[in-house]
Amino acid sequence: MHKTSETFFPFRYCYERNLAVNPQGGNTGLVGGSVPVFDEIILSTVLMNRIISFDKVSGILVCQAGCVLEKLNEYLEEQGFIMPLDLGAKGSCHIGGNVATNAGGLRLLRYGSLRGTVLGLEVVLGDGSALDCLASLRKDNTGYDLKQLFIGSEGTLGVVTAVSILCPQKPKAVNLAFLGCQSFAKVLETFTTCRAMLGEILSAYEFMDEKCMELVERHLKLSSPVTGSPFYVLIETSGSNSTHDEEKLNNFLERAMTSGLVTDGTVATDDKKIKALWSLRERITEALTHDGCVYKYDISLPVGKLYDLVTDTRARLGRSAKNVVGYGHLGDGNLHLNITAESYSHSLLDAIEPFVYEWTARYNGSISAEHGLGFKKKQFIQYSKASEAVFLMQRFKAMLDPKGILNPYKTLPSGS
Amino acid sequence: MHKTSETFFPFRYCYERNLAVNPQGGNTGLVGGSVPVFDEIILSTVLMNRIISFDKVSGILVCQAGCVLEKLNEYLEEQGFIMPLDLGAKGSCHIGGNVATNAGGLRLLRYGSLRGTVLGLEVVLGDGSALDCLASLRKDNTGYDLKQLFIGSEGTLGVVTAVSILCPQKPKAVNLAFLGCQSFAKVLETFTTCRAMLGEILSAYEFMDEKCMELVERHLKLSSPVTGSPFYVLIETSGSNSTHDEEKLNNFLERAMTSGLVTDGTVATDDKKIKALWSLRERITEALTHDGCVYKYDISLPVGKLYDLVTDTRARLGRSAKNVVGYGHLGDGNLHLNITAESYSHSLLDAIEPFVYEWTARYNGSISAEHGLGFKKKQFIQYSKASEAVFLMQRFKAMLDPKGILNPYKTLPSGS
Repeated sequence: MHKTSETFFPFRYCYERNLAVNPQGGNTGLVGGSVPVFDEIILSTVLMNRIISFDKVSGILVCQAGCVLEKLNEYLEEQGFIMPLDLGAKGSCHIGGNVATNAGGLRLLRYGSLRGTVLGLEVVLGDGSALDCLASLRKDNTGYDLKQLFIGSEGTLGVVTAVSILCPQKPKAVNLAFLGCQSFAKVLETFTTCRAMLGEILSAYEFMDEKCMELVERHLKLSSPVTGSPFYVLIETSGSNSTHDEEKLNNFLERAMTSGLVTDGTVATDDKKIKALWSLRERITEALTHDGCVYKYDISLPVGKLYDLVTDTRARLGRSAKNVVGYGHLGDGNLHLNITAESYSHSLLDAIEPFVYEWTARYNGSISAEHGLGFKKKQFIQYSKASEAVFLMQRFKAMLDPKGILNPYKTLPSGS
Repeated sequence: MHKTSETFFPFRYCYERNLAVNPQGGNTGLVGGSVPVFDEIILSTVLMNRIISFDKVSGILVCQAGCVLEKLNEYLEEQGFIMPLDLGAKGSCHIGGNVATNAGGLRLLRYGSLRGTVLGLEVVLGDGSALDCLASLRKDNTGYDLKQLFIGSEGTLGVVTAVSILCPQKPKAVNLAFLGCQSFAKVLETFTTCRAMLGEILSAYEFMDEKCMELVERHLKLSSPVTGSPFYVLIETSGSNSTHDEEKLNNFLERAMTSGLVTDGTVATDDKKIKALWSLRERITEALTHDGCVYKYDISLPVGKLYDLVTDTRARLGRSAKNVVGYGHLGDGNLHLNITAESYSHSLLDAIEPFVYEWTARYNGSISAEHGLGFKKKQFIQYSKASEAVFLMQRFKAMLDPKGILNPYKTLPSGS
């Protein structure tokens, strides 16, 4: 076993003195999970940035929690592998934070969630004792899988200090298609068509509406080679044979064009053009911050219902919002709904919430697909979880953190 | 939400009367997890065999726990999908039991573990109350992922009554190669070569030693088209384009042959021949039962060490064992080590155990890769799990099953 510490002294100190601790990685979270609320001590993982081991036969990486995602990916690329997750914040987010928040991102469609790719964890519990579950095995059915409880618990049950993770091979060929669709129904039909025709090489299916494109062009001066459509989709393929992949992609594009699913589009195979096209999608968040005060929602829904929430919210808010935009990981049923206004207004917030949450609950969606609950969304958990489930979560919290010093005021609702 | 029951009456009855319950699906487990030890009441899921829903856009199946795996697969194949797991016992095992034991099997290499593909569960707790986590969303980060605790806990924390699971598309093309290798080192090198050249279409990489082949031929009268090698590997590809897949496979086979990794082999593309080749691998377990008393071990190890355990065990036991054979899911680092003898002997068992467990622990392996601990292996958990982890598991058990009536005497060590 790769123990980094038997007892984690800062935690032991805090435990004995009843001091609350706020674990913090790259501090890139969007729901306030990594920010202290009152007088919590920040425990930063920034110096825990060592790669412990990488095995080229199995593709298993073991590293400390403070490693920056992009750095890990660069390290792996040199050895012919990649990280199984990728997200906009990769330049500063830490792998420990990714695990603690069960980060999703752009590659989930292809490589699955961290619940499958994380093979082991080292976790420090509230009393400062280390829990060593840092196995590097693809299969291990000896007792309960304790590490799962810490994945996605936002540092409220323990602090991730080291991670063992299964990494896929670096694809030899990557292609990107950026396409325009005339309706959301066509976006959906394009998805089922490309999933059938691209099969195992499909690695991303992202969508954005024309409002997103307007904001990216206006605020960031990016220009899109594809224009004049109400919806845009970005399709990425990753495979082991460029000739085969291009043939599959071309067959799909021909079908999509001749059947009228897609009205315009461009394809990129070289790195530079691929990056330029990805930035149209990846920099939407940044463009939004230039548009004013942003109300952000990260929703999972049955994929057919995904855009109805944007349309209904837009109709409801009318001119009280500046822009209501929708984009996200369509292949995963994950919508990022964002509303901008010139400045913060309580009445606008009241018009949005709980409307958006109630709408989501009506279709059995999740009010936080990948961002977590943190401080900002914890009171809304009941829109996606049954009360007996929340009660059980509270019992786990009480058992693992009896003093309530681990990232307090986060994830679970207070006062219940 | 798709509730099948608010309160599960048989359980409530048992809880109130302090009666222990042994949940049982297809009763195909190999470690005694589904068999009562003393006077437990068997709770069979056999009548809970209803498919609740299947969504063709998302590929998400929701069904009751008693559905037989093969039946589910047949149902899905008609709609162009497959189950993400496949195992020898598919004709009788139940999906609820698969989830409760975190079953691995033949497709894990491609589609990942149930921890990633199971999206939701309905579970009945020890007091008879139902816990509804039966979401059908690929992403949901609202609070702790409670369902993970029930996956692989062998019915000791709650009983799975319904499952929501993400199913992959049925591959349009399947190919099988059955090859002979002259050493285990070549089996490993063949693996890294085929993983690089077959990439995303590789769906199984199984191996078996010549002893396995002998037993399958002798006891089941199966005949292999490939003979005379100390090791055999079975490589399956599953993809969306038969021309591309065959080209990839042929390129790989040419490389493997010319570089001497492989000395003999055959390829199958039609269903009948594919099934015949698979049965050489899948029926090893059956052949072993005809060979006498079988001592079974299901071990995870770093892949390079996998066969050393077989060699060392064979050397240690000498003529006191009839046969010592090794086979398994090499791509997952999972070895099935089996030892046969004319009849059960305590002294032979003493020669095997704890030797095999100590050997496995030395290389940070798992003493139960996919079979679980059940009744037979629970006392050996400490070879793969740290004592503080076992202690924490016991606290979870005490919290969720305070009366100790849920599948007692299983999974966790007694008397500690």
